[in-house]
Amino acid sequence: MHAASSSPHAEPLVLHEDRFLDPDPGVRRIARALYEQTRGLPLVCPHGHVDPALLATDAPFPEPTALLLIPDHYIFRMLYSQGVPMEAMGVPARDGTAVESDPRKIWQRFGEQYHLFRGTPTGAWLDMELHDVFGVRTRLNGATALRVYDEIAERLRSPEFRPRALFERFTIEVLTTTDAAADPLAHHQAIRDSGWGGRVVPTFRPDAVFRIAQPTWAAEIQALERAAGTTVDGYAAFISVLEARRAFFRSLGATSTDHAVVEPYTERLPDAEADRLFQLGRAGQATAADQARFEAHMLMEMARMSTEDGMVMQLHAGALRDHNQRVFDRFGMDKGADIPVRTEYTRNLRNLLNAYGNDPRLTLVLFTLDESTYARELAPLAGHYPALRLGPPWWFHDSVEGMKRFRERTTETAGIYNTAGFNDDTRAFCSIPARHDLNRRVDANWLAGLVARHVITMDDAHEMARAVAYDLARQTYRLDTVPEPARAPATLVET
Amino acid sequence: MHAASSSPHAEPLVLHEDRFLDPDPGVRRIARALYEQTRGLPLVCPHGHVDPALLATDAPFPEPTALLLIPDHYIFRMLYSQGVPMEAMGVPARDGTAVESDPRKIWQRFGEQYHLFRGTPTGAWLDMELHDVFGVRTRLNGATALRVYDEIAERLRSPEFRPRALFERFTIEVLTTTDAAADPLAHHQAIRDSGWGGRVVPTFRPDAVFRIAQPTWAAEIQALERAAGTTVDGYAAFISVLEARRAFFRSLGATSTDHAVVEPYTERLPDAEADRLFQLGRAGQATAADQARFEAHMLMEMARMSTEDGMVMQLHAGALRDHNQRVFDRFGMDKGADIPVRTEYTRNLRNLLNAYGNDPRLTLVLFTLDESTYARELAPLAGHYPALRLGPPWWFHDSVEGMKRFRERTTETAGIYNTAGFNDDTRAFCSIPARHDLNRRVDANWLAGLVARHVITMDDAHEMARAVAYDLARQTYRLDTVPEPARAPATLVET
Amino acid sequence: MHAASSSPHAEPLVLHEDRFLDPDPGVRRIARALYEQTRGLPLVCPHGHVDPALLATDAPFPEPTALLLIPDHYIFRMLYSQGVPMEAMGVPARDGTAVESDPRKIWQRFGEQYHLFRGTPTGAWLDMELHDVFGVRTRLNGATALRVYDEIAERLRSPEFRPRALFERFTIEVLTTTDAAADPLAHHQAIRDSGWGGRVVPTFRPDAVFRIAQPTWAAEIQALERAAGTTVDGYAAFISVLEARRAFFRSLGATSTDHAVVEPYTERLPDAEADRLFQLGRAGQATAADQARFEAHMLMEMARMSTEDGMVMQLHAGALRDHNQRVFDRFGMDKGADIPVRTEYTRNLRNLLNAYGNDPRLTLVLFTLDESTYARELAPLAGHYPALRLGPPWWFHDSVEGMKRFRERTTETAGIYNTAGFNDDTRAFCSIPARHDLNRRVDANWLAGLVARHVITMDDAHEMARAVAYDLARQTYRLDTVPEPARAPATLVET
Repeated sequence: MHAASSSPHAEPLVLHEDRFLDPDPGVRRIARALYEQTRGLPLVCPHGHVDPALLATDAPFPEPTALLLIPDHYIFRMLYSQGVPMEAMGVPARDGTAVESDPRKIWQRFGEQYHLFRGTPTGAWLDMELHDVFGVRTRLNGATALRVYDEIAERLRSPEFRPRALFERFTIEVLTTTDAAADPLAHHQAIRDSGWGGRVVPTFRPDAVFRIAQPTWAAEIQALERAAGTTVDGYAAFISVLEARRAFFRSLGATSTDHAVVEPYTERLPDAEADRLFQLGRAGQATAADQARFEAHMLMEMARMSTEDGMVMQLHAGALRDHNQRVFDRFGMDKGADIPVRTEYTRNLRNLLNAYGNDPRLTLVLFTLDESTYARELAPLAGHYPALRLGPPWWFHDSVEGMKRFRERTTETAGIYNTAGFNDDTRAFCSIPARHDLNRRVDANWLAGLVARHVITMDDAHEMARAVAYDLARQTYRLDTVPEPARAPATLVET
Repeated sequence: MHAASSSPHAEPLVLHEDRFLDPDPGVRRIARALYEQTRGLPLVCPHGHVDPALLATDAPFPEPTALLLIPDHYIFRMLYSQGVPMEAMGVPARDGTAVESDPRKIWQRFGEQYHLFRGTPTGAWLDMELHDVFGVRTRLNGATALRVYDEIAERLRSPEFRPRALFERFTIEVLTTTDAAADPLAHHQAIRDSGWGGRVVPTFRPDAVFRIAQPTWAAEIQALERAAGTTVDGYAAFISVLEARRAFFRSLGATSTDHAVVEPYTERLPDAEADRLFQLGRAGQATAADQARFEAHMLMEMARMSTEDGMVMQLHAGALRDHNQRVFDRFGMDKGADIPVRTEYTRNLRNLLNAYGNDPRLTLVLFTLDESTYARELAPLAGHYPALRLGPPWWFHDSVEGMKRFRERTTETAGIYNTAGFNDDTRAFCSIPARHDLNRRVDANWLAGLVARHVITMDDAHEMARAVAYDLARQTYRLDTVPEPARAPATLVET
Repeated sequence: MHAASSSPHAEPLVLHEDRFLDPDPGVRRIARALYEQTRGLPLVCPHGHVDPALLATDAPFPEPTALLLIPDHYIFRMLYSQGVPMEAMGVPARDGTAVESDPRKIWQRFGEQYHLFRGTPTGAWLDMELHDVFGVRTRLNGATALRVYDEIAERLRSPEFRPRALFERFTIEVLTTTDAAADPLAHHQAIRDSGWGGRVVPTFRPDAVFRIAQPTWAAEIQALERAAGTTVDGYAAFISVLEARRAFFRSLGATSTDHAVVEPYTERLPDAEADRLFQLGRAGQATAADQARFEAHMLMEMARMSTEDGMVMQLHAGALRDHNQRVFDRFGMDKGADIPVRTEYTRNLRNLLNAYGNDPRLTLVLFTLDESTYARELAPLAGHYPALRLGPPWWFHDSVEGMKRFRERTTETAGIYNTAGFNDDTRAFCSIPARHDLNRRVDANWLAGLVARHVITMDDAHEMARAVAYDLARQTYRLDTVPEPARAPATLVET
């Protein structure tokens, strides 16, 4: 299928200083100046999926394949799409199917297929991660794979590569995890208790307890009851417990909640109707339509609670999860088979925005996978309602072209000050600096284009570059209650 | 939320000669040559919302805040989105709420928030308006706001800043207003009677009398009856009166009609069914569904009348008006809360296009807020049906990036000769030159890119630049029945 | 409407060596290097609509108007959209209406309107075709039209312009036609029997026999019965005959099937239900809804057969055919009035992908006219399912900007190796080299941009340029079973 057979050999891995910047010399000069200003700013990570256990235990990372490949669906979905079975990549099967267990064989396979990532953000992140985090200086391919593996493995054994050491080296100002409503947050508590100074905070994500038609819902409610130490036998108790859980999350530093739905429909139900649906769920009789109404109502309640407790509300809409039944049955969720669908915001959010969108106490951050809504719906909504901020390009779009399209389609209507800054949204801890770096380069480059076309002045651009790289994330997520740290080192590149 | 506090001070306001043009020196040179050819062409304004009373009375404009801020929802919606109450911006409330009445305080607030418009077309228009129309040479910010206010206020008191003087200085060849079906067009008549040579013509916009389910419909029909001097007690009379009103509009120079719908559905009903719906409206019993069918039918009738009387038909689809109920209740319509929705043209317009789209007497200009339809539906339709022309990027998209996307997505299928030229669509009279200038720069720049990539020749580009800046608007709207005026001055910049 | 009256005269027709390439000197240098590598590669044409009779009989082409204008709806739809009647362009009417029969008059009309194609791919293709294939050195316009006509006419009389001679001069490696399920493939057989070495293969396109609600369906089934030499009186026989026809197509070199639907809905029905629908069709009682379900089921069956016989399955969705009833009634189908509609893939294809999308024996190539699905649905699907490949920008989008958007929106999620390479999709045989050349220039230029921004290395770019210009089409369509031919001449330009 490809020309990988054309004698792969060892070439140096070089990250060009001007990568992702415009080739026009004038634009590039401006872009460099703007990027130099932001590249060393601390990393604010207001939304992500890193396991807090990493930083609670600070145990050494495993070998390279278990660290970098097996958990990363960006990687194995691409190989899968080209005919490499997931079993061959060591993705654990939940149905007992045997999968490859030799990490070096898996890494070799990956190296042989590395050309698949040409021109993709995954390729860009990996190259920077290998180079800057692990000090690799050889391009990955079939011929060099095992040598690169051994290099990384050796690094991972040294204390400088323990999670907390990397956290500090990455100059992470705050790292936000995503946690179920019933989560006891033991790892967050352990981090606090440890006396380590890294700021790691949870996000309240109660999706599972809103899905009354799911077979797993009863178990989720039981978990909630255990966490809350009370029974949840009706809608009123449910609301009380959710409020209590939010307070508990806040006590461990949480400043935000997160909610995922397919269609962002919102509607307030009478309490009695909400309770009727809740009881249908308890009886195992709730339908998909019942659940959709209950979720629409619970989004209203989450907004209401946010106006009262000040937690920033995030809404991720438009991903149809687990599209591939065969892959789901064998390997479970998060296997690269969540596929976006067309999403409507103008009508769906109207109820919520009419009720809470004018309230200065609410901040609602919207994410989408449907770019056709950027200019048509999201930017006009965010350019009007005080409560709204637009989240950065989500998921498959957190890439050079995706970020560029986001700015080009939202700025002229909403400006930058109605956007929420960057987040890396990743579970791949070691990729965090690469993702922020890519974003800072792309945004600097976009601003440089505006300067070069005399749309904004260089002074404006400097303020805007800092805002999109740092200030807006801190402010939107209300993470600016602690002072800015001292200036971070200019780069994490090893010398 | 921003760095506006970073010691704002007085900086010179400079409009770069090459603003909005490509930074590549080769492209810019071509773009400049094309722009130099079109920048001095007279302004053809075939669609807009300027109040004709301005030019009928030629009274001096009010002070700067009342002129530039309070009526401009592009401005106050952006401030509102960042937490500035509309009351604080002096937007008049219809429910009796007190609002700020000190124009200098409002202007100061605006100056302090001016950074919000960085990178937006509103900012670009305002800068050019301040610089070229009002001679301001200081950048607006919190420190300079009142000085700028005083400068503008002083200018507004001089006779050179009366509406007709500006109309002439702006080299407006024709200015088209938008007027309800029942409008007596007294201001248009007064302009004619005054002997002043400026060409100001109305547009027939009968939306309100088609909305049979609205509580205000009965009053609209009564106004129509008064204007027509006859009773409108049924569908047949309604049609007759509309034909008469169109003739009256034409007698005052009108060459076009305009129609706004959410979904551009079209369908011819039997006359008896149309009359039944009309009577339901009279009885106050028409539903939203009844109205949708009546509107779909009336679009067919408007097309039919256009084939007979030669009026160009405009259709604006896809804006959900007054999304924010709280803002609407207090401040009324046009407050920056009209939000676009996904719009379908291929199936919805099929009935109308099959009936009239092949008729050389009809010109139908389509506008959209849903850019996903440009390449998919609108360009293919306009590249086939003789009656169709595509209107310029509408509303939130009348901007550098919006105009660029329009050309990139429509030209390869429809060419430029199936597009309708530019219109400014504004009620802000003093912003008209800035809007045309931005458009002429962006189109010149787009053509320069085609020349630089050897897609078209420079000779082609010169003809195309003139077409999109001037000829196509005159021709599409049938405003070319009067000769072109003598060459206008090259620029309106004060010396 | 245009400035064509501005003294058209004879200007030289020059194709700039760097046309369609980025104006930035650095990017252009890289683009040229990449293009030089691919410009001379043989043309792989895995999907198109050339009449195989051309190459079976190798008869001389007719005069220029019959060859280039009358069959090309890209040309006459544009003239029609600007008010030139189809009758005046000589488009044959099926209702007996007289149409222009003087080819020189038609050609003259075309020359006078040639400015309409400025900035369109049709214009670009035509210029290159006139220049490179027919050796024209004068720009076409009203003043030069007849001279150009005579030049082409003269060329067409020489043996070097017979179809097979051009096929060889164009360095076509394989040309794929599109053929109905009942087609006896007599021309393909004749080509084989002739001993001529050109590779021309059919594609199995059974759409007509799936449309059980069409009045023509019974006749289609009768044709199928004649072709198969058996009766088709039920669903079981229908399936058997389709399998036999596919085998027959394969015996004449076919490697693929093609399917066109409005909405790509897929669903497996029980055999008994499929038979019930089939019998409704036979009784003339099938509804549009019945047909939709039958088509959804037959797509499942086509995928099933492909897993068994190895034929690549193509799916073209989202064109609403024959939008203009008046044009259809008089002139029939394919008259430039097929208009795209919004198309949904994520949910519609789920049944088929769950059943066959993980099967390594299936290759399914998806085409769309709805660009909003590129980044949202198609790239994520193709970046996961092993069976999927994305077809190139289809139809109205096979253009400079359309190709660029395709790469920008699909590569970062799906990479290039989940795309299917280029196809020209044309019935205009003489335009084939121009279409491939445009694509090779645009893809080389896109890759050059990635190199210049240091996203990929030059080595990567060379491999990718060859893949998108040549390898991927051969491999995706399983046309790589014969060896690559010797290196073709670098250019087809006449000297």
